[in-house]
Amino acid sequence: MSISGIREVFEAAGEDAINLGLGQPDFPTPDHAKEGAIEAIRAGDSDEYTSNKGMESLRGAIADRYAADQGIEVDPAHIIATAGGSEALHIALEAHVDPGEEVIYPDPGFVSYEALTHIACGEPHPVGLREDLTMDPAAVEDAITDETAAFVVNSPANPTGAVQSPEDMREFARIADEHDVLCISDEVYEHIVFEGEHRSPLEFAETDNVVVVGACSKTYSMTGWRLGWVTGSNRRIERMLRVHQYGQACASAVSQHAAEAALSGPQDVVDEMVDTFEERRDVLLDGLSDIGLHCPTPHGAFYAMPKVPEGFVDEVIDRGVVVVPGDAFGEHGAGYARISYAVDVETLKEALEIMDEAYQAVN
Amino acid sequence: MSISGIREVFEAAGEDAINLGLGQPDFPTPDHAKEGAIEAIRAGDSDEYTSNKGMESLRGAIADRYAADQGIEVDPAHIIATAGGSEALHIALEAHVDPGEEVIYPDPGFVSYEALTHIACGEPHPVGLREDLTMDPAAVEDAITDETAAFVVNSPANPTGAVQSPEDMREFARIADEHDVLCISDEVYEHIVFEGEHRSPLEFAETDNVVVVGACSKTYSMTGWRLGWVTGSNRRIERMLRVHQYGQACASAVSQHAAEAALSGPQDVVDEMVDTFEERRDVLLDGLSDIGLHCPTPHGAFYAMPKVPEGFVDEVIDRGVVVVPGDAFGEHGAGYARISYAVDVETLKEALEIMDEAYQAVN
Repeated sequence: MSISGIREVFEAAGEDAINLGLGQPDFPTPDHAKEGAIEAIRAGDSDEYTSNKGMESLRGAIADRYAADQGIEVDPAHIIATAGGSEALHIALEAHVDPGEEVIYPDPGFVSYEALTHIACGEPHPVGLREDLTMDPAAVEDAITDETAAFVVNSPANPTGAVQSPEDMREFARIADEHDVLCISDEVYEHIVFEGEHRSPLEFAETDNVVVVGACSKTYSMTGWRLGWVTGSNRRIERMLRVHQYGQACASAVSQHAAEAALSGPQDVVDEMVDTFEERRDVLLDGLSDIGLHCPTPHGAFYAMPKVPEGFVDEVIDRGVVVVPGDAFGEHGAGYARISYAVDVETLKEALEIMDEAYQAVN
Repeated sequence: MSISGIREVFEAAGEDAINLGLGQPDFPTPDHAKEGAIEAIRAGDSDEYTSNKGMESLRGAIADRYAADQGIEVDPAHIIATAGGSEALHIALEAHVDPGEEVIYPDPGFVSYEALTHIACGEPHPVGLREDLTMDPAAVEDAITDETAAFVVNSPANPTGAVQSPEDMREFARIADEHDVLCISDEVYEHIVFEGEHRSPLEFAETDNVVVVGACSKTYSMTGWRLGWVTGSNRRIERMLRVHQYGQACASAVSQHAAEAALSGPQDVVDEMVDTFEERRDVLLDGLSDIGLHCPTPHGAFYAMPKVPEGFVDEVIDRGVVVVPGDAFGEHGAGYARISYAVDVETLKEALEIMDEAYQAVN
């Protein structure tokens, strides 16, 4: 699939299709985030450029969340507010990958890792996953060469929903330290974890070879606002800031205000969303199992990635349910499908019935 | 000057300094733009991703302005809404410049041209300006080699305030056509013109070798909202979209709504702002002339770029007025200073008195 397999699949399906191809939560942005934006607009605080890194108060709120949620101390001066996690990944790769250098990332993995590596003039080096769809630190270590600039860790992961164990995260940090290679930890789904816990390689690293990408997009259902961030050591932030300040100037000021309100306001909306996602996940896993499809249990995000028989995805899409073929996420995704459960339980059950029919048709 | 000469100058001045170093208008964002944003927030229309290119209604509003203001027909499908003019320039260069290819741009010129060329792995090729600080099409044509990927035209220009004539614009289009080189026309100041008129090379080009960068930032005093765009032929838009969709996903949805309201609402706020800038420009030019400083008459934007004696900028900054030394904008800017008149007339007059003292001190 060329530009984006996901987009092609959307276009193939009709208007009335059940869309299990979405990469965003189906919840509204919390009211307190919206009110934060509206207050800033009315006060005239969203008209002008903020500093390139973003407002100090926003960066303070981000640092406070790292302290409260993960017990990690992050200096607000070592944060750049970005146009979503997308731009954070872009500047992390652009600033750290020289032409021809290699970037290691999970396969199947989020489509941007390959694309942004190309944009940074780097060489993509995808690595396959374990049977449970987590990325094996040993596979990453094996893939490292003299030409490796960076490797990407994504947990909880898109498209798999897999969550790396704390032991894995510790290993990723060790590998970054020992091989003097940058670990870019994409943690935009950090708060959507059902079993186990999210830990960042940043917690374990002894050098400054870990940078972390975060965002409000998934946690607060704020994808449209485009507000993420990247954090790392001073020298790494300065290098990334060089790309950010010329390519963006600053993140949208109104979105910065909304994000600050989201991050510093009540967090129960997040817990409720995660509970809802977990309930749906269980419905989906039961349904897939009833159909006869094997699916590694996703412990986070809002995706499941079952193994599917040849022709299954086409049969499902023909019947008006959009799922994304696994090979849209890399060569090793072939034979899988990504199912997003950012839809209500009723819709999910309806889609499962259709998937059952599709499965019968190809089996 | 390394990262950004402008930032360094800001930091050198005190809190109470008169800041003539600003690159943004000192007006509020129009109320109808703000209300457009607030309505969208309340309606829940700013929560989700828009399409990668931006909302159709926004792109329609941008196309309508090209038709109404310049009589140019632009297909809304050939527009990408971007995170300000900054991202538009970034994706135009990133998508069209291969490693090692050359990019020609004005010197003195906007600092991002050089930086974004480097980020695209290209080779900067600055060209000096005419005595009146416009860019000579003949100088651009002379600078073109087999390695040239693109040249940047910026009119009205930052840092000079110079406006290229329609004849120049026609020549830039011819050069792009004949040499099969891309002309990136940065027109973010298009509406701030005092004498003459703004014409785009896009109007004159016979091939698809012109792409135009525009923005709400300066026209509607919306720098903080980060909403610009790029327009070009289908194949060029597709190429730029590849960078945009992975590096951004889409422009901030709330900012897209504000921009749509700004572009499609009453435009008298723009006329009033331009009249105010013209009045200030005249005060500034008179004052500089009284001091004895020669300044090519700026016909647009909100900058003037007088020739200044050695030591003048330091003396001015020491006295608490921030202006930017010309060599922050390129080698040929040496011996000039950029003065932004995004301040009220009273402040401008106060600053002129201080500049007079500084001039006496070094002359």
